[in-house]
Amino acid sequence: MKEGVSDHTGNGVMSRDASSLVDGARAGRVRDIGRLLSLIEDGGPEVPAIIATLSAEGVRARTIGITGSPGVGKSTVTAALVGELRRRGERVGVLAVDPSSPFSGGALLGDRIRMQEHATDDGVFIRSMASRGQLGGMAATTPQAVRVLDAAGFSTVLIETVGVGQSEVDVAAAADTSLVLLAPGMGDGIQAAKAGILEIADILVVNKADREGADATVRELRGILALTERPAGGWEPPVLRTAAVSGDGIAVLCDSIDEHGRWLAHSGEGDDRRLRRAREEVEALALGMLRRRLRDGASSERLDRVARALRDGRTDPYTAAATVVAELE
Amino acid sequence: MKEGVSDHTGNGVMSRDASSLVDGARAGRVRDIGRLLSLIEDGGPEVPAIIATLSAEGVRARTIGITGSPGVGKSTVTAALVGELRRRGERVGVLAVDPSSPFSGGALLGDRIRMQEHATDDGVFIRSMASRGQLGGMAATTPQAVRVLDAAGFSTVLIETVGVGQSEVDVAAAADTSLVLLAPGMGDGIQAAKAGILEIADILVVNKADREGADATVRELRGILALTERPAGGWEPPVLRTAAVSGDGIAVLCDSIDEHGRWLAHSGEGDDRRLRRAREEVEALALGMLRRRLRDGASSERLDRVARALRDGRTDPYTAAATVVAELE
Repeated sequence: MKEGVSDHTGNGVMSRDASSLVDGARAGRVRDIGRLLSLIEDGGPEVPAIIATLSAEGVRARTIGITGSPGVGKSTVTAALVGELRRRGERVGVLAVDPSSPFSGGALLGDRIRMQEHATDDGVFIRSMASRGQLGGMAATTPQAVRVLDAAGFSTVLIETVGVGQSEVDVAAAADTSLVLLAPGMGDGIQAAKAGILEIADILVVNKADREGADATVRELRGILALTERPAGGWEPPVLRTAAVSGDGIAVLCDSIDEHGRWLAHSGEGDDRRLRRAREEVEALALGMLRRRLRDGASSERLDRVARALRDGRTDPYTAAATVVAELE
Repeated sequence: MKEGVSDHTGNGVMSRDASSLVDGARAGRVRDIGRLLSLIEDGGPEVPAIIATLSAEGVRARTIGITGSPGVGKSTVTAALVGELRRRGERVGVLAVDPSSPFSGGALLGDRIRMQEHATDDGVFIRSMASRGQLGGMAATTPQAVRVLDAAGFSTVLIETVGVGQSEVDVAAAADTSLVLLAPGMGDGIQAAKAGILEIADILVVNKADREGADATVRELRGILALTERPAGGWEPPVLRTAAVSGDGIAVLCDSIDEHGRWLAHSGEGDDRRLRRAREEVEALALGMLRRRLRDGASSERLDRVARALRDGRTDPYTAAATVVAELE
């Protein structure tokens, strides 16, 4: 019989290895945190038990979503925020679910150097997450990664995602505070409005604000926001300027994030958001479980059979899908 | 009793209205095609019956995915391809699932004018599809939209998606032939390789090839491709150059798409791809149905209940999700 530690939740038994990873992560050991995150990305059989153990304490860390089109300077802003939060005494985790992020290896030299400042600081943990191919997707994996960083004592977790793509934007929108970044002169205000990313913004950040056209972009954004109806007492997203390379505006941005946090607490919106987020997390995990069942053994053969019938014109898509769903049950 | 036409597939009964839309679309009436696509996007109760009727004939149209980062000129290449395919006597449908695409309204003036050339041509149908918020997502909606355009007699359907984001790339990858577009001087080769979009390319297109740096980008891509192992007799993705604004290279690109089509047919890969695509279509629709059930009535209340327990630390994520899945059955 395999030795192990039961977690009493019906999520199975953790091996001693997993159990010692959890202890290591709680003690803030970088290597153990990294290995736990890899386990979660791989979706192994011990993940439910590990997460159950970590969840017992609830999540105390605040999460900040950072999103925007490629080229607006997300990684530079993230690096500058890490620096400012460290100066304020916070321990900071960074999850980069942007496949084109420098944190995932394809760094512009400048960004890499800026992040290297933090490389030897054990109050900072930076991790890129694969955004493709997981069952349940980012919507299921990211909250679990946040639970690991929370358990490891990081008080703020920055979640960087590219602001293009349905799943990517949803992940940033699920944070306590969502920053949407733009840069001047990219005609970005209207594009962002159309792509629906302005509506997820708690704070709008015009980065590279030392460049020509910054004033016009700020005006454009304020104009769009003025047209948006909000409930009385609702949060009015500020439009801030940063030049993250030099650090200009980053302290003000941090203050604004704090202010939004206070608003979340006293308005009750923080509780509502956590409930919506929990709902989305459960739904994403449930759909991941259902998808796994669709792809498993007998179900996978049925899926192949109906797919062949569909390709050959012997059935239609909805009948095929309904068959697969019925046989799942 | 509501009058209607049964489709004998168990997908319900079509109203006379839906039935006349289907007839109109088959006759190529633009307004009816547009209304059918709206019905599909909205996911109304008549959609399964409509799709079943359209599916009876199978899909004959070839589909071409066009993807790449914002700014590489996807829409310009799409417009130029439409022109060339028209000259070759094809009827062409365009589905733009890119939220930042000019076809969805946020056009750069030049692109809008280029597409207007086609606006009065009834051999061209252009439609932007919402990429957010649908149950089952783009992976479920796009194949149904292709079925509509196929039934309306379009021989080629171009599917334009932004090459960032998991769902977006998957949709382009599901086409018969997938084009991945890059532009010189964006450091794009390595980034694209990292983001995993090169691996879905049947044809790589360096657009804006009249700009400085085009040779270097072509060399970089050929270098990356040379490192990729392929089975003997497999398709070797060519690296082509276009300057879509002037039309340079577009005829060669069309020839290359045709050549890939012939390879699909004689290698048997075309059949395999259609099977994989059917499988993905069925899976996406099945997951959409399951998600709808999770969100319906009693199930939605259960989801709220466990989400509240999760937020308040009274359960853990996987136990919560397993509860919801178990109660679904």
